[in-house]
Amino acid sequence: MSTGFFGNIQKIKYEGEGSSNPLAFRHYNPDEVVLGKRMEDHLRFAVAYWHTFVWPGTDPFGGNTFERPWFKDTMDAAKLKADVAFEFFQLLGAPYYCFHDADVRPEGNSFAENTKNLNEIVDYFAKKQEETGVKLLWGTANMFSHRRYMSGAATNPDPDVFAFAAATVKTCMDATLKLGGENYVLWGGREGYETLLNTDLKKELDQMGRFLNLVVEYKHKIGFKGAILIEPKPQEPSKHQYDYDVATVYGFLKRYGLENEVKVNIEQGHAILAGHSFEHELALANALGIFGSIDMNRNDYQSGWDTDQFPNNVPEMALAYYQVLQAGGFTTGGTNFDAKLRRQSLDAEDLLIGHIGGMDCCARGLKAAAKMVEDKALSAPLNSRYAGWDKAENQKMLRGEESLDAIAARVESQNVNPKPVSGKQELLENVVNRYV
Amino acid sequence: MSTGFFGNIQKIKYEGEGSSNPLAFRHYNPDEVVLGKRMEDHLRFAVAYWHTFVWPGTDPFGGNTFERPWFKDTMDAAKLKADVAFEFFQLLGAPYYCFHDADVRPEGNSFAENTKNLNEIVDYFAKKQEETGVKLLWGTANMFSHRRYMSGAATNPDPDVFAFAAATVKTCMDATLKLGGENYVLWGGREGYETLLNTDLKKELDQMGRFLNLVVEYKHKIGFKGAILIEPKPQEPSKHQYDYDVATVYGFLKRYGLENEVKVNIEQGHAILAGHSFEHELALANALGIFGSIDMNRNDYQSGWDTDQFPNNVPEMALAYYQVLQAGGFTTGGTNFDAKLRRQSLDAEDLLIGHIGGMDCCARGLKAAAKMVEDKALSAPLNSRYAGWDKAENQKMLRGEESLDAIAARVESQNVNPKPVSGKQELLENVVNRYV
Amino acid sequence: MSTGFFGNIQKIKYEGEGSSNPLAFRHYNPDEVVLGKRMEDHLRFAVAYWHTFVWPGTDPFGGNTFERPWFKDTMDAAKLKADVAFEFFQLLGAPYYCFHDADVRPEGNSFAENTKNLNEIVDYFAKKQEETGVKLLWGTANMFSHRRYMSGAATNPDPDVFAFAAATVKTCMDATLKLGGENYVLWGGREGYETLLNTDLKKELDQMGRFLNLVVEYKHKIGFKGAILIEPKPQEPSKHQYDYDVATVYGFLKRYGLENEVKVNIEQGHAILAGHSFEHELALANALGIFGSIDMNRNDYQSGWDTDQFPNNVPEMALAYYQVLQAGGFTTGGTNFDAKLRRQSLDAEDLLIGHIGGMDCCARGLKAAAKMVEDKALSAPLNSRYAGWDKAENQKMLRGEESLDAIAARVESQNVNPKPVSGKQELLENVVNRYV
Amino acid sequence: MSTGFFGNIQKIKYEGEGSSNPLAFRHYNPDEVVLGKRMEDHLRFAVAYWHTFVWPGTDPFGGNTFERPWFKDTMDAAKLKADVAFEFFQLLGAPYYCFHDADVRPEGNSFAENTKNLNEIVDYFAKKQEETGVKLLWGTANMFSHRRYMSGAATNPDPDVFAFAAATVKTCMDATLKLGGENYVLWGGREGYETLLNTDLKKELDQMGRFLNLVVEYKHKIGFKGAILIEPKPQEPSKHQYDYDVATVYGFLKRYGLENEVKVNIEQGHAILAGHSFEHELALANALGIFGSIDMNRNDYQSGWDTDQFPNNVPEMALAYYQVLQAGGFTTGGTNFDAKLRRQSLDAEDLLIGHIGGMDCCARGLKAAAKMVEDKALSAPLNSRYAGWDKAENQKMLRGEESLDAIAARVESQNVNPKPVSGKQELLENVVNRYV
Repeated sequence: MSTGFFGNIQKIKYEGEGSSNPLAFRHYNPDEVVLGKRMEDHLRFAVAYWHTFVWPGTDPFGGNTFERPWFKDTMDAAKLKADVAFEFFQLLGAPYYCFHDADVRPEGNSFAENTKNLNEIVDYFAKKQEETGVKLLWGTANMFSHRRYMSGAATNPDPDVFAFAAATVKTCMDATLKLGGENYVLWGGREGYETLLNTDLKKELDQMGRFLNLVVEYKHKIGFKGAILIEPKPQEPSKHQYDYDVATVYGFLKRYGLENEVKVNIEQGHAILAGHSFEHELALANALGIFGSIDMNRNDYQSGWDTDQFPNNVPEMALAYYQVLQAGGFTTGGTNFDAKLRRQSLDAEDLLIGHIGGMDCCARGLKAAAKMVEDKALSAPLNSRYAGWDKAENQKMLRGEESLDAIAARVESQNVNPKPVSGKQELLENVVNRYV
Repeated sequence: MSTGFFGNIQKIKYEGEGSSNPLAFRHYNPDEVVLGKRMEDHLRFAVAYWHTFVWPGTDPFGGNTFERPWFKDTMDAAKLKADVAFEFFQLLGAPYYCFHDADVRPEGNSFAENTKNLNEIVDYFAKKQEETGVKLLWGTANMFSHRRYMSGAATNPDPDVFAFAAATVKTCMDATLKLGGENYVLWGGREGYETLLNTDLKKELDQMGRFLNLVVEYKHKIGFKGAILIEPKPQEPSKHQYDYDVATVYGFLKRYGLENEVKVNIEQGHAILAGHSFEHELALANALGIFGSIDMNRNDYQSGWDTDQFPNNVPEMALAYYQVLQAGGFTTGGTNFDAKLRRQSLDAEDLLIGHIGGMDCCARGLKAAAKMVEDKALSAPLNSRYAGWDKAENQKMLRGEESLDAIAARVESQNVNPKPVSGKQELLENVVNRYV
Repeated sequence: MSTGFFGNIQKIKYEGEGSSNPLAFRHYNPDEVVLGKRMEDHLRFAVAYWHTFVWPGTDPFGGNTFERPWFKDTMDAAKLKADVAFEFFQLLGAPYYCFHDADVRPEGNSFAENTKNLNEIVDYFAKKQEETGVKLLWGTANMFSHRRYMSGAATNPDPDVFAFAAATVKTCMDATLKLGGENYVLWGGREGYETLLNTDLKKELDQMGRFLNLVVEYKHKIGFKGAILIEPKPQEPSKHQYDYDVATVYGFLKRYGLENEVKVNIEQGHAILAGHSFEHELALANALGIFGSIDMNRNDYQSGWDTDQFPNNVPEMALAYYQVLQAGGFTTGGTNFDAKLRRQSLDAEDLLIGHIGGMDCCARGLKAAAKMVEDKALSAPLNSRYAGWDKAENQKMLRGEESLDAIAARVESQNVNPKPVSGKQELLENVVNRYV
Repeated sequence: MSTGFFGNIQKIKYEGEGSSNPLAFRHYNPDEVVLGKRMEDHLRFAVAYWHTFVWPGTDPFGGNTFERPWFKDTMDAAKLKADVAFEFFQLLGAPYYCFHDADVRPEGNSFAENTKNLNEIVDYFAKKQEETGVKLLWGTANMFSHRRYMSGAATNPDPDVFAFAAATVKTCMDATLKLGGENYVLWGGREGYETLLNTDLKKELDQMGRFLNLVVEYKHKIGFKGAILIEPKPQEPSKHQYDYDVATVYGFLKRYGLENEVKVNIEQGHAILAGHSFEHELALANALGIFGSIDMNRNDYQSGWDTDQFPNNVPEMALAYYQVLQAGGFTTGGTNFDAKLRRQSLDAEDLLIGHIGGMDCCARGLKAAAKMVEDKALSAPLNSRYAGWDKAENQKMLRGEESLDAIAARVESQNVNPKPVSGKQELLENVVNRYV
């Protein structure tokens, strides 16, 4: 039975490029086969509960703009919200969703009450998942909004906050397991600092390392088969966050012996804030063996904060999915829209329109990327560029079988004097433009 | 015998705060004892050969503004430059200097010729060092200016460039050893990419890992006792550089098994370009155990490129040297002025004035930092902020002796409900302002 | 009668540099004479009602951290807030305060109710001002927080919002007049756009031009003698704001014939977000004849949003007040602390400590700047740098009495070939460091 | 007779979307009619002499990478360069080019020698233009590279530099007139400052105002019919440049009475550095009535300096040309590729490939924009969004026929209480994506 929130809107269909229906897909066609796999199985779209059903349109200088009937902190409102959410997933045809505990349950006065509330909603979700076939891409705990976390969760100077956070993650992992979630994500918005003047960096890193080990140990204990994912972000809300970017997370994982246990969930907007392109973060995670999942959005390049807009630039999407394909595509991961409407987009239909645009844009990107892969449009020139390294003598050098002084002697005796070769960047950019 | 380049300027003296002589120190007093050590031994100032004697005042839109008699690519000019340089070190009272091979020798037509030229200058330097008592803080190889390196040195797609670079580092390490250099530095300005479209990230990282291992192996082979230092910089000249920041370098070292062999040389301007404060990079290097040395300058906060100005903000210097003191002070490292005059500062005396200002500013910062250490002005509140972690039960949690579910059970049974405590940032900022 | 909110804290006193009392001034000494004027009369400090008494510690990822007894939207709470505020002004010794309508009155359901509520509070304030001697630096209207303004106030596509905003400004100007406010400020946080796709730039600029003319006309009608001030900010909350920076505001004023009627209120943090130094904006406003007042804070250089921290860097303050002095000092303007505590600074005393630090920092800056003025430390070298322009023939060229071709003929015939002269930047930076 | 520089490459042809020939156009079809005008006449492409034929591949950390036979500072080399340039224009089918004096002539030892050299080359160009039909879009003077301009040209503290610069502009305007140039451009790379400490902002603005008036007066004197264009850029090479952005230039023109005489040449990369989108600067220039011409390139969003890459993002181009069409299209202006190869792109063919990609990308953008115009895809929703302002009573308010207090009275009496309406940003973004 419909909640009526979306009025007469029917399930969004694929109508093809010719359509100008704002409530139809023009490019996302779930069953279309790309590189031997259904588009739906490639992209694995998920809706973010928080942005779509919880965020009220506030910003640092403005209050609520959205008025939703479920904007109350009660269990009934939480269930109405869930009803609307699952209705939305079905209208949109999104196979997955993601949530924080605080998105879905009323806030309790104690850990015990939070847990009880969460469990009640998890049961409600379980039934809805069964009814609709919608699945949980990942669960996570909100350990940044409540004032108890203002100085950090795992990295709090107060060990009781560490304990409270640990307990909270435990219940959220239990919930994720129960709902068949395919990953568990940690984003450490308060794991960082506002000022070094009151911060012991080393202590806090060690606390965070221990915390993550607790999570991994518990995962194995309960038999959770999904991936544990860290979501890097350089700053905001904190001045500096320890999970700054993919490279930083990798070093952290190595330091605490977790590089084979934990992967990354990479967000376009966070990449931009860290001074990287999205494709850089994806390529690096792949090179380091820790690629997991993506949070898909678009950051405004002229704004210095996380704008979390729906993606709308197809060439950028093509380069992103090209990197996802290079990494072998998603396994447990997927494409979570960590994107919110602009706060002026008040209408119920705007929620659908934002997602439709994003999904179409990703679909176009994926198809372009797949075609580049098929044509070896980029990989063939890449391979020939590095071909010199395939020679036996160069492999030897790379394997460490020639010492620095031996190399120097060879360079001198053979008068090695390498000649530069064009990098052909413009040519390759034009090649990409043949596909997008 | 004087070159005459500095006219009648005499050795710069400490005249104290009352002085308004632009060619005197007002704060840097080498023999003054701070925290039980002479100021000179704390700060270990070095002059950067490249900025001070080589850079001609060019920028991306303008040609030379400086006209120096040694601006010719001949051996005679190289020796005149060395004469002026050592005269400068003595006038200034700088105990150290730093150089790249390309700064000091004429460019040859082959590796052999480069080596020959370098060796001739090294002999010349050795004599000058002996005469003057000036020492070499570190040596390094310029593997970014010549067109052969345009696509990388260690990370070049062409293995011959790797070999040429390796051979070059070998000769520069030999030179550094011979001159009693206390460190050897690598800055990888071309170790990165302009576009991912023509870049194999993983291959290049592996090349760079091998290269650095070659360097470390050779260091041990020749008995070089100094530190090997990596200098992080996020970008410029390349779009992305692999040694992005301290955290990235740490992950790289861990990946290639070098975290106990290699440390970092941290530059203020590079920290800023990476989105960090200078003190962040220092504190992090200390926490990770890889703090080595600093390149002291000031980056313009409103410019998106490396401005390499002389430091002039004392409160910032105080926070920087506070971190240096937290790391135990310099061992092999020091304070290298990787700073250049503004291109309009044409006069010979400007070279001295820039350094005098920088040295005074560092000295004030050091003294303020030392006083904060003595007074426990920051460390006492810091320790009490984290005091909860000293309790046995919390230590147990931190040592991994309590599992996630055990913690959760405890939180629930004891109704752990932590109360936020003021972080006192403004108070601590005011405390710092009592010292600067 | 005290509200008790500040416990036993007594009026903050000047204790001099030797004091380590966190609740005393070390540098701000209201009666000390600087350049012939009392320090209090130079600095004209004001407390910002919104940050100090209204902001609850939220950020885009976190809820309230502060818990104040007046955090309710009732008239009684508004009066309690006012009681605490005036108690605070007196404890601190701040001669001025500033407010938005929405800071001080409960939100009504209509324009009429808002007006009624505001008027009731204005009467309450009037009495408190009389009792305490505290004065109003400026009043302003909050036309950015309520959802009716989400698409702009003056620049809204809906003319009814324009009208509602105009009516609101009218009541706030009336209130400011009644309270003897010395300025009236407009900050257009929603006067801009989120996307050009739904924006008619020209229409919106014309609307804004008309709006500001309405304000000026009304000012004259009611005999308000204070200044009308625009506060530039480039973005945040909007993607682009029309009052981007001082230069942009100047062009706007010229376009709508207001350059002699309206001045600017310049904020350090907004300058930084626009890519400028604070002193740049101050110097430019002075050069263009529109300097009015300042909003004093410090923006984190590594954060891309408005951090509104209390100022704490004395050298920066010295350069800022040097520009204020160059502009002849404040007339109707003053130093409003548009600064908020960090959200972890929970204690009542933190409100005082933040302001004390800021006031001390400004006082140090002012004293250093005044000394530089007295010594002509910067102005003497500046005047000699431009001395060539004082010659009659060059004045002639500047007055437009020599045409382009006449100049060219003279350059050719006299073989004019100017020689560069050192800009002496490092020397001047060192000079400044003698004063801070 | 061919110079042979481009080997066997033949004139670039339009081959349509199906082509994968890297030396063919896939989208740029000069004779194709778009909105009633030939594509060539819409786009008016120009090649930038400096980037294409003069820039040697240097960057702040590296020397030349390009080796061109004309890289010598002689008249013969200048003529060889011209031969190659005009050959290039014809191969590419570019109807226009642009140049600085310093790009095309050897540097002389005096103003007179510079003029003589320039005139010789101008005669050479005139003949080549006649032979080939290639035209001059605009001429300009390089007043930023030579050391005499290090402290500014018009804004130099030394009036002799002002005079030298004025004389130089005179000769360049003469050259532009002689060659039938359609515009004359001024970019003030040194019109700004490195530090306020040695800068008199007001004096320098007045100097610049006088200088520009000289130029306008001379234009009328010699009967030059083209437009005088200012090119805004916020910084680089200087720390701050007076022509910061379009809004700043507008205010400057108003201040010096030039708003009807001078327009702007807007560059994408400069817009980005100023914190704006390209389309913002275009839309603003149109709203203010000063839109002139564009410098087409793409700035790397993660680099803080001017990267001057060839444009390659079609959605961005579509939004840019949409604004150009809103402004009525180009009159004297055009699309100048102020774009340079990456310094690793060594091959002669890379020069063509870069331009082909850029031209194709612009052509796609133009076609998409034209279709949006034809379909009223954006203008129809825009008009209805502002439709309320068409009502007589609102027009009255806008015309200034209702005072602030009258509006307030009306709001109160009618209980005006506007209701927010969705801004539909996501819908409009999806609409744009139907066209690109």
